Amino acid sequence: MPRLKKNGRGLAVGVVGASGMVGRELLSVLEKSRFPVGELKVFSSGRGAKSVLFRSRRLPLSAPSLAALRGCRLAFFVSSDAVSRRWAPALAASGVWVIDDSSAFRLDANVPLVIPEINASVLRRDRRLVAGPNCTMSGLGLAAAALDRAAGLKDVRAASYQAVSGAGLSALREFLLQARTVTGRLRAERADLFAPALRSLRPAVLPRAIAFNAVPQVGDFAADGYSREEIKVAAELRKVLRSPRLPVSVTAVRVPTLRGHALAAWLRLKRPLSLARARAVLKKAAGVVMMAAPDYPTPAGCAGRTEAFVGRLRRGASPNEIALWVVSDNLLKGAASNSLQIAQELLRRGWL
Amino acid sequence: MPRLKKNGRGLAVGVVGASGMVGRELLSVLEKSRFPVGELKVFSSGRGAKSVLFRSRRLPLSAPSLAALRGCRLAFFVSSDAVSRRWAPALAASGVWVIDDSSAFRLDANVPLVIPEINASVLRRDRRLVAGPNCTMSGLGLAAAALDRAAGLKDVRAASYQAVSGAGLSALREFLLQARTVTGRLRAERADLFAPALRSLRPAVLPRAIAFNAVPQVGDFAADGYSREEIKVAAELRKVLRSPRLPVSVTAVRVPTLRGHALAAWLRLKRPLSLARARAVLKKAAGVVMMAAPDYPTPAGCAGRTEAFVGRLRRGASPNEIALWVVSDNLLKGAASNSLQIAQELLRRGWL
Repeated sequence: MPRLKKNGRGLAVGVVGASGMVGRELLSVLEKSRFPVGELKVFSSGRGAKSVLFRSRRLPLSAPSLAALRGCRLAFFVSSDAVSRRWAPALAASGVWVIDDSSAFRLDANVPLVIPEINASVLRRDRRLVAGPNCTMSGLGLAAAALDRAAGLKDVRAASYQAVSGAGLSALREFLLQARTVTGRLRAERADLFAPALRSLRPAVLPRAIAFNAVPQVGDFAADGYSREEIKVAAELRKVLRSPRLPVSVTAVRVPTLRGHALAAWLRLKRPLSLARARAVLKKAAGVVMMAAPDYPTPAGCAGRTEAFVGRLRRGASPNEIALWVVSDNLLKGAASNSLQIAQELLRRGWL
Repeated sequence: MPRLKKNGRGLAVGVVGASGMVGRELLSVLEKSRFPVGELKVFSSGRGAKSVLFRSRRLPLSAPSLAALRGCRLAFFVSSDAVSRRWAPALAASGVWVIDDSSAFRLDANVPLVIPEINASVLRRDRRLVAGPNCTMSGLGLAAAALDRAAGLKDVRAASYQAVSGAGLSALREFLLQARTVTGRLRAERADLFAPALRSLRPAVLPRAIAFNAVPQVGDFAADGYSREEIKVAAELRKVLRSPRLPVSVTAVRVPTLRGHALAAWLRLKRPLSLARARAVLKKAAGVVMMAAPDYPTPAGCAGRTEAFVGRLRRGASPNEIALWVVSDNLLKGAASNSLQIAQELLRRGWL
């Protein structure tokens, strides 16, 4: 094959969006992994940083171009939907493996949407554009897939507690600026002053001020009242589980946390499943850490970890229903480390 | 009656726990209301403040005693379960009306548990100990009661986003100290440092550090895995709705907000109810503000308001199911202003 880019030391790998929140995490997990990166080409849409560090070397960021990207064997896209739409299909068509973390192609019938622990089997050698899931979906997906295999999912309800880093660097900057602006002025004894202090904050990136608030809007709303994020989570869950008609209702809420998306979920099952059995199923599920009660995961406690952490396992409100709490790092299992896992799977199969 | 304490200018009113978070709010709503307070006697368990302000006068706090409390026509208890258990039943037995905001007697079959817009009808002249609801329950209760009347509730699932003020002044102090400790050190560009910064925080009042975190534990856990808060919300909802067998599953989560409890809820109904009709029902419901999409309530936006705010009305995951988002100020509709409403209802009936 003319485009085999494997050199003596490893593969030529591209990262598009290397200076973004997920980009930085991806460089970090690549560095820590044994993935055979030879040459690393880093790209960015332009604003912000001029270079990034990788293996103690400073690499200059350049604007993406098909010519430069074609010099890679594999390219990670961790930028915007628009950037993925512009470059990813052409690049994949030219033979370069593309692992895309944007939402641009996730629901495309010709694009495998992959959480490797669930459905690495959908990878195909001739489908070189591969999508990773929405960062809110991955943890829930791992738990739901395990329970689906054990007792058949009937329907899913989930309320999310999403970290601000999921909205990107500019949202996170806005949040921390708000927190710094207001934190020093707050006194526990003057709860009457909380409302005026918070109402003085003027959001620009997120739809409402997020410091000391909970905002039930992630993306615009569709006609049925669901937000884009809620629709994505539901549709991607159905695709990954291969259950195109699975009823899923999500309420996506941004909360003032930094990294780690949590969900309170209710999973109704088709067949009876004891709590003990559900616990055993989740304990054995790849990529899942089932925490023993009374312990439970929190976003702060799971930051920097690549697994999905499940706790608070209980019976739900109806027979054959499981309630649980799941947390995963939105920048890692929700994005960077899931992408790396996909690359490792391609390598294992000898496709890279 | 020998103990009629109505003087020329108004009633003798006691507030036990007047220097706590809810106590301060209660004094504030009493002051703003037209409730005929003559003499105000304020009590506190001792630590902390020595006096409180009411109508620009500084009132000295004293330790509660039956003798002093008996001098009141009406006493609000906004202190701990232990304080309510010690004084409230004896006081009510002696003829003083007691409006108790603790959880000590809410599920007692002889104690009316009252959200006036829902069930003022359960008040009885010979039951002078009256309980107000858990602060997480009141907003959900108002929405659930309206939909129950319209189409019959089948079951309820709800995930809460509870403000730290709900855990009291010491929890709020701990939270704000944590926020001040860590906020200045956080940089959006260094997401790799979030986890170590947060893990350095050592909680003493709440079970985990709450700054920049979400903690799915409010109270201890029972054998079935549900927390005390979750059990209270479910049991109180059943009592207020007079549906002793209503299946309710709650996941109670503390989030780093200041005041205002929010819930993402799914309400399955026995009979069909269109979204338009559900919206109309909620719009007409007393105590509820139904927000028109795409607007929605947030905790920061509802702080200081006495109503329950409902938004994000959608179809749920199954037929005849409504998903919604409800926010109410935990210190007001969840506590102080609900207690005042009960007192106003007693006054309206001529029982005070």
